[in-house]
Order: sequence, then C-alpha cells, then structure tokens
Amino acid sequence: MASPTRDKIFAAAQDRFHAVGYTACGVQQIVDAAGVPKGSFYNYFKTKEGLALEVLEMYVASSKREILSNAALSPLARIREHFGFFISRYEMDGFGKGCLIGNLSAESSDDVPLLREALKDSLSTWADLLSSVIVEGQAVGEIKLGLEPGAMARFLINSWEGAVLRMKITNDRRPLDDFMSIGMGLLDSKQA
Amino acid sequence: MASPTRDKIFAAAQDRFHAVGYTACGVQQIVDAAGVPKGSFYNYFKTKEGLALEVLEMYVASSKREILSNAALSPLARIREHFGFFISRYEMDGFGKGCLIGNLSAESSDDVPLLREALKDSLSTWADLLSSVIVEGQAVGEIKLGLEPGAMARFLINSWEGAVLRMKITNDRRPLDDFMSIGMGLLDSKQA
Repeated sequence: MASPTRDKIFAAAQDRFHAVGYTACGVQQIVDAAGVPKGSFYNYFKTKEGLALEVLEMYVASSKREILSNAALSPLARIREHFGFFISRYEMDGFGKGCLIGNLSAESSDDVPLLREALKDSLSTWADLLSSVIVEGQAVGEIKLGLEPGAMARFLINSWEGAVLRMKITNDRRPLDDFMSIGMGLLDSKQA
Repeated sequence: MASPTRDKIFAAAQDRFHAVGYTACGVQQIVDAAGVPKGSFYNYFKTKEGLALEVLEMYVASSKREILSNAALSPLARIREHFGFFISRYEMDGFGKGCLIGNLSAESSDDVPLLREALKDSLSTWADLLSSVIVEGQAVGEIKLGLEPGAMARFLINSWEGAVLRMKITNDRRPLDDFMSIGMGLLDSKQA
C-alpha cells in the first residue's frame, strides 16, 4: 500500500543500505534517517530483510536491463551500451558507491537466506539475459564462436562486479575501463 | 607488544570482520567475542580501524603470494597455483566466507580512509606481482603477446574478486571454475 511514510522509510533504506551496508544499518537508523517513529516501520514492513528485498527489486528495475533486448542495436553494441550505462551512473556518484548487488553479496550470509536467494536469482536472470545476447551475436558473426555463452556471461558479470568493487577503492574509472577493453575484447570476433 | 589478551582481541576481530563485516562489528562485539573487558581493547589498539589494518596485513601475509615468485614453476603454472591455493582455502570454508580484501572493499568509504588506502596498496602490490609474472611468461612464449601486462593483471585480480563475491551467493565453486577456465585462457598462448 502506498503512503508517504512508507515512501520515506523506503528511500531512507535505499540510501543507507547502499551507503553503510545492510548489516551495519539497523531499523532504528532507517527510521531516524526517514524522520518517522520506529513503530511505523512495522506498519509497512515485516522485517528489515523484507525491506531489503524490495530495495533490491527496485535497484534491478532501475538498471535498464531492457537495453540488452533493444533490437535497434547489434548484439555486441547492446552489451557495450549495457555496461556503459552503469559507468555513466557510477560517474554521477563519483565512482564511490559501487553496486548494491555487489555490496549486498559481500555481506551475504546464512543469516539472510531470503536476501541471498534474491541476489542469486537476480544474478542468474542477468546472466541468462546476457547469455542470450551472446548467442545472438555468435549467430551474426559479431561475437567469437567457441565460447560457451552461459559460462562467458557469468564470467563477464562476475568480472564486472569485481571491477566495480575495485572502483570503490580507487575512486576512478580505470577498473571499469579495463573491463570494457579486456572483457569486451573476449567477445569481439574482430579482436584476436 | 605481545600478550594473550591482545592475541584474543586480534583473533576475535579476524573472525568477526570476516563473518559480519567491518562496519557491523563494533569494538563491543569484538571484546565480547574475545571474552575480555572493553577497556583492555584500548590498551592494545588505538582504533578499530587500526586493528583492521593489522588484520588485513595478516590476511595478506597468509595468502602465499610467494607462490608467484617460485622459480621451480613456469610463469603460467605459478599463476594457476596461486589462484588454486585460494580455491582450496575457500573449499575448507564451504565456499561461504569470501575474501577479506573483497569484503572490506565492498564496505570501503570515506569514513575509513586508512583502511581504503591499505586496501588500495595491497591490491596494487598484488597486481604488480602478477604483472611481472605475466611479463616473464610472455618472454618464454607461454603467455600471449599483445597483452598489456599491467592492465591484464588488474583485470584478472578484479575478475577473481568478482568470482569470489559470486561464490558467496552460490556457495559453490562454479564462479571460481569459470574464472580458471576463461580467465586463465586469456593468458595461455596455446589457447585461441
């Protein structure tokens, strides 16, 4: 159900989970940041983990995965555009905040089974999408043959998340540029 | 200065930082886990960040980077052995705990400038070591020419950290295996 209080809690959680992490950010800190009384949290969310699931869903929805299905672009161009979109987003944050999926993954443990499962599903869906674009690119000769699309998609996504992690340390775009040149080079049939 | 109390605090911090993260784990939780009074913490450590720097140093010291300089092995074999050592270590933890460097990187922010700097140095030193092995491998024809060793070393380390992050979600070795086949394939001059 929509409500201004719920929206405030949600926005505060989005910000706090991304900024300080899931474990370090308690319900108290979320309601303080939202400027609402603690009791109101439980009117809208059963648990902090439930709230995190919604925040993750919204994050994924804002990540423009539909670029990967944009038939106006060639398969390889779509993949470049896809990662390029993230780079422009990180640039706006001064290359400091990182990826919420990666940050939550680093904190993932048996204590948050629902969140871990949601992260797993989200990463699998992402890899499946990427894999199908690789298959398309191979069919038109734009992407190297001989690559197993599923394994390559997983490898690229993991490499990307690693690059973003490194970016949080270097606070610059070099790790992302390394990924774009070497990772994309793995796919491009015009490159050795 | 060595002391049993200091050792207990250090061991508790090693475990807690790795298990729940740096931000989520306060000094109180560390001394509780160590079974020592809170005041004793400050007899041995100025700040939690200072303690984390020591924990990181110990973690790096235990990661057998010397494998990369083992002249008894060929350059490519050393690189495989290097990452293979980590795989065996993660296997002992049931593929659940991840890499302390990666976990701390995900939490890194302006709030912990010394820790961020130490992570940056540690990752740079690691990349420099790997880069010099790539140069050696190129010289003996075992590693593909045409790769820029520094960029490739950074890319591989970032990809590795990303694979380890994914491992924390999947709780299996597949992300590491994907890295070993595709990441190592990038180097191997016998592979297309």
